[in-house]
Amino acid sequence: MGNTFGKLFTLTTFGESHGGAVGVIVDGCPSKISITASDIQYELDRRRPGQSSLTTPRKEPDTVSVLSGIFEEQTLGTPICMIVNNKDANPKAYEHLKDVFRPSHADYTYQKKYGIRDYQGGGRSSARETVARVAAGAIAKKCLEKYGIEVLSWVSQVHSISSQVDPSSVSLEAIESNPTRCPDPNAAKEMISVIEQARKEGDSLGGVVSTVIRHVPVGIGEPVFDKLKADLAKSMLSIPATMGFEIGSGFRASTMKGSEHNDPFFTDNSGAVKTSTNNSGGIQGGISNGEEINFRVAFKPTGTIFKEQKTVDSNFKETTLSAKGRHDPCVLPRAVPIVDAMARCVILDHLLRHFSRKSY
Amino acid sequence: MGNTFGKLFTLTTFGESHGGAVGVIVDGCPSKISITASDIQYELDRRRPGQSSLTTPRKEPDTVSVLSGIFEEQTLGTPICMIVNNKDANPKAYEHLKDVFRPSHADYTYQKKYGIRDYQGGGRSSARETVARVAAGAIAKKCLEKYGIEVLSWVSQVHSISSQVDPSSVSLEAIESNPTRCPDPNAAKEMISVIEQARKEGDSLGGVVSTVIRHVPVGIGEPVFDKLKADLAKSMLSIPATMGFEIGSGFRASTMKGSEHNDPFFTDNSGAVKTSTNNSGGIQGGISNGEEINFRVAFKPTGTIFKEQKTVDSNFKETTLSAKGRHDPCVLPRAVPIVDAMARCVILDHLLRHFSRKSY
Amino acid sequence: MGNTFGKLFTLTTFGESHGGAVGVIVDGCPSKISITASDIQYELDRRRPGQSSLTTPRKEPDTVSVLSGIFEEQTLGTPICMIVNNKDANPKAYEHLKDVFRPSHADYTYQKKYGIRDYQGGGRSSARETVARVAAGAIAKKCLEKYGIEVLSWVSQVHSISSQVDPSSVSLEAIESNPTRCPDPNAAKEMISVIEQARKEGDSLGGVVSTVIRHVPVGIGEPVFDKLKADLAKSMLSIPATMGFEIGSGFRASTMKGSEHNDPFFTDNSGAVKTSTNNSGGIQGGISNGEEINFRVAFKPTGTIFKEQKTVDSNFKETTLSAKGRHDPCVLPRAVPIVDAMARCVILDHLLRHFSRKSY
Amino acid sequence: MGNTFGKLFTLTTFGESHGGAVGVIVDGCPSKISITASDIQYELDRRRPGQSSLTTPRKEPDTVSVLSGIFEEQTLGTPICMIVNNKDANPKAYEHLKDVFRPSHADYTYQKKYGIRDYQGGGRSSARETVARVAAGAIAKKCLEKYGIEVLSWVSQVHSISSQVDPSSVSLEAIESNPTRCPDPNAAKEMISVIEQARKEGDSLGGVVSTVIRHVPVGIGEPVFDKLKADLAKSMLSIPATMGFEIGSGFRASTMKGSEHNDPFFTDNSGAVKTSTNNSGGIQGGISNGEEINFRVAFKPTGTIFKEQKTVDSNFKETTLSAKGRHDPCVLPRAVPIVDAMARCVILDHLLRHFSRKSY
Repeated sequence: MGNTFGKLFTLTTFGESHGGAVGVIVDGCPSKISITASDIQYELDRRRPGQSSLTTPRKEPDTVSVLSGIFEEQTLGTPICMIVNNKDANPKAYEHLKDVFRPSHADYTYQKKYGIRDYQGGGRSSARETVARVAAGAIAKKCLEKYGIEVLSWVSQVHSISSQVDPSSVSLEAIESNPTRCPDPNAAKEMISVIEQARKEGDSLGGVVSTVIRHVPVGIGEPVFDKLKADLAKSMLSIPATMGFEIGSGFRASTMKGSEHNDPFFTDNSGAVKTSTNNSGGIQGGISNGEEINFRVAFKPTGTIFKEQKTVDSNFKETTLSAKGRHDPCVLPRAVPIVDAMARCVILDHLLRHFSRKSY
Repeated sequence: MGNTFGKLFTLTTFGESHGGAVGVIVDGCPSKISITASDIQYELDRRRPGQSSLTTPRKEPDTVSVLSGIFEEQTLGTPICMIVNNKDANPKAYEHLKDVFRPSHADYTYQKKYGIRDYQGGGRSSARETVARVAAGAIAKKCLEKYGIEVLSWVSQVHSISSQVDPSSVSLEAIESNPTRCPDPNAAKEMISVIEQARKEGDSLGGVVSTVIRHVPVGIGEPVFDKLKADLAKSMLSIPATMGFEIGSGFRASTMKGSEHNDPFFTDNSGAVKTSTNNSGGIQGGISNGEEINFRVAFKPTGTIFKEQKTVDSNFKETTLSAKGRHDPCVLPRAVPIVDAMARCVILDHLLRHFSRKSY
Repeated sequence: MGNTFGKLFTLTTFGESHGGAVGVIVDGCPSKISITASDIQYELDRRRPGQSSLTTPRKEPDTVSVLSGIFEEQTLGTPICMIVNNKDANPKAYEHLKDVFRPSHADYTYQKKYGIRDYQGGGRSSARETVARVAAGAIAKKCLEKYGIEVLSWVSQVHSISSQVDPSSVSLEAIESNPTRCPDPNAAKEMISVIEQARKEGDSLGGVVSTVIRHVPVGIGEPVFDKLKADLAKSMLSIPATMGFEIGSGFRASTMKGSEHNDPFFTDNSGAVKTSTNNSGGIQGGISNGEEINFRVAFKPTGTIFKEQKTVDSNFKETTLSAKGRHDPCVLPRAVPIVDAMARCVILDHLLRHFSRKSY
Repeated sequence: MGNTFGKLFTLTTFGESHGGAVGVIVDGCPSKISITASDIQYELDRRRPGQSSLTTPRKEPDTVSVLSGIFEEQTLGTPICMIVNNKDANPKAYEHLKDVFRPSHADYTYQKKYGIRDYQGGGRSSARETVARVAAGAIAKKCLEKYGIEVLSWVSQVHSISSQVDPSSVSLEAIESNPTRCPDPNAAKEMISVIEQARKEGDSLGGVVSTVIRHVPVGIGEPVFDKLKADLAKSMLSIPATMGFEIGSGFRASTMKGSEHNDPFFTDNSGAVKTSTNNSGGIQGGISNGEEINFRVAFKPTGTIFKEQKTVDSNFKETTLSAKGRHDPCVLPRAVPIVDAMARCVILDHLLRHFSRKSY
């Protein structure tokens, strides 16, 4: 339960990190969208471990197989199933986790909820599950391109290092220009330094991903419960390691006055209604107002660290644990394509919901 | 579309602020729960305007009528319909809003989405819609009481005034002890002062509501997309004027190291597994771990202010606007029962989802 | 649970037969559809008891109140809540049913499912619940008129009396020309006779309602599970007292050969693709093919009869029961507007689903 | 859209008949259910072509791969993905169907709905899609065994040949004793004869599948719209080639009187409430009453015949068509495991829905 997301454009995902495969069925995709396997692989490669010295050196090629829904490089309107096989795991590598609960991981909660768990690499709770989201997001991206809608995410903060980025002008090129996915080169340099330091210490670091969505038409989003900001919030808090979400002015709004915060309307040269500020983050009353949509997502430092930690075993006896193997000291750079993917799925889903009555 | 919330315990709401009534159908409520109209009215009275000098002096008695689903003060297991009639409105009082878009309200987005809007008092986008949520939440509260699950929210910040509150010991009595619903008496006093000042200036103030949920059993929440934190985030961002949500350590986690953030497990005297810190906010892998659940919700200052603002009219001509009538300078105190209600609905819905297999 | 129907055009209903009211929230209705209370009342009057000598002489005016979603006789795109108040019931009239289970009614199953039931007039299981469906169907009807889509149902069989009706030419006038709602005047006459006879005997009669849906565009219906025929089947079997559904050739298809059953395609004078027969009932592969949609629904004789029947009481002791009060000997004429309503809701829902990608 | 079925126990299917694979993600399965690949393969083998002289001699081994959700032969409570690879197709074998619409198939409706179709072997509209349903049904079967709930379907009619079968005593052994899956040996013999005759004529035959469900506890099914009979009806009409569904007395009820049709209650020796007849088919008010559930499903003769038929091509020009290759003259025997599968999924889904409040 809980493995399907969306109302009209839906993703249903499956897969344990060390089972046969991870993958997704995308349902509700419009027909006749041009898409190739390399469009999907491009996004998976952005998420893949081992792409830079900052991320885990684990080698996972993560090659996608498209099993259905695309015919002669066009979508059929039928379900698109995409899978990525897992590499043969060495079960012995995980023997030491069979009877112990890793702190701030899902081992304990899964065991209590289900009475059973796949202890190899986190099983279903592994961030490897996000492969499926990224594959689905690549489909959504191609659909959104028809409308010129663009979603761009970047790392705006790592631990104490903040960046200066203008959401209105930031480009994919700038984001991809260095392994941190922070488009502010000075901040990126500092981020690399603190991440490398954390790796040496066997520790991990949190951070923030920021997102801008451009060219969303006015009118997308469904009051009352399915406000666009509400569905974006849900999609982001469904990503592993996320701790917070804010839209537009976000938590800063709590310290503001209405006279500062309100976004005055005006009419631009083309006669279009615009706002002169964008504290609303592009959404008013839960519905897009034609301005850029801006949000930020907080990530905790990953739970897997090499320092020794106190915990309990499956007999509820106290013990200690230190991570083995190869892990990211900071997941932020690899979180960027996941945030992109979820945002794209939400926007496309709501676009289709809106169209259902628009064309009426 | 978008007016139903929940999977097994669902609320479907209706109503424009100046139409015939606002209300809700609650479906999926377990049978044989004892509930009276006064249980529901108690929560509605907490949300009602005019309850203190801090809120709008508008008089809305908001008396609930239960039309179905409760028989001899017990739930039947059938849909519970509750309505609150709107007072006779004076349409002339809203004539001045017919052709102008209030800044940072939903007038413009509704007009563009639907091609029509009820301009009287915000229509469907009015916060009056939350009457329905509070009524539904009162039903959820009675169901949760069977399990000893308790949800408590309070105002933790108004503009620049923060408070010191211990989530583990805060009580309903302390929260209700003053009109701010801030249980820290010193902060409350300052909050009253800044709110009164804002009223005098014809301005409005933002703030933060904090929530603790106690005694949630281990195992509630559904990976992957319907993580408990994800559904809480959605429920909160669906409330009017919300700009952000954070669970546990929240945005602060982004500045932390794993060795600081991880919550070590230990076994308490009763043999139960506990964590010695609670940065996870009671949720790990999207599933409750038995600790208290803690979250915070940011509210913007309300859009309705008495200061003159720039805007455009329905012909896209630029104009100015000043609010008339009676409005809250700070909605935070009245937001508390709404946050309570949504949190209760989410927890109950997930409890029922969990039970569907537990009993299996 | 189970009180909401539809995916994009949804109805959520509430109400016990002798509670405060019965009603419905319609969500997902397109905006700017012209509709008046009398459009809704017209359909409710067709369902109302006491409209002819054939139906129960109970007087239920069933006057609808529209509480939301319609503004200046146009839909707002927001939820439309419609309620019909129940007349003050005399609880004493139902005392004799408090502790006994009526055969072939839902008393026993509700009691076992919920551990409680409203024994007055069947409570939630009463056919009075269909008031809500008919009100919702009246909204759907107005929406479908924009596309020239027409739904017509009639009584095609009562007990052993069959009728001769041409689905392609049958009209609302013919259907409404006599109290049986059978447009074949000869059969109607015989039906009146057998219904009057059953009333005298204190017995009840089953029958069949037939439906034609005209001018549905090609392409409506969603493979695989949400085939148009599947959703029509569900909608019909959700009506009280229904026992069967068949589309096109229906059960007769089971005795046919492919060479007889296949519907050959041809091109008509306008260049449109048509089929020369319509055994498919207008649906192929779950999707409308542009031909008329034809289906039939079987109704059992109502459970409430005046003859003495064997049953058990709430202590599981055997006893006997005879109905009191005023009841329909044959519900078929009043079932017609209910079948109309559900069919309209299904077609509109699927039309909107199709549009969500069509406009893409 | 429309490729997911169920509310708590859900199947989401994918696959074109000649794409890479067909398969399913089963979500919501309880954890710790023992299941092996051979449990799934057993049901797939019952559906497989080429199992007897009556069915198509096409060789499709249809070997299932379980990619997730099962660990050490127990369900994890996470999504179970099962796929069956398609054999390498010879695209040239389908060239002749590229530009022509087969009568009473979905070629025309898919082309008009989506503007594109995979013309190889029916693509998504192929009955090959039912592989996924049968795999999912095998999971449901194992879950239902925990409660002793048994679903048995058989062929009760082929063309004009009816059978005499007692639903209360029919066994799997009798059903599987001959290739027709009709447990009445005399009728089976005649069925074989008419099917062989149809094959010689290049024609196809319709028929009826009957089902009994045993040991369903009282209380399963959700009024109002999700009545157990309504969800069974939908599930059955979602199967390719189905034309009708009836529960209990079915269409025969339309010719009966209430005094004949009502099922009198009595108390059996064990003190349990039973009915002395079962015209209700085990469901009253949409909820199971503890009696056997009985229903029947009508199948049309398959559209693919070797006789020449009139049709149109993709330019809407009239032409003729004769089938090539190898096809079933009568799909009834292979429909049996599909009906079993869908019925099992519906019952399990409703059992979980009921449990969500029962355990409450």
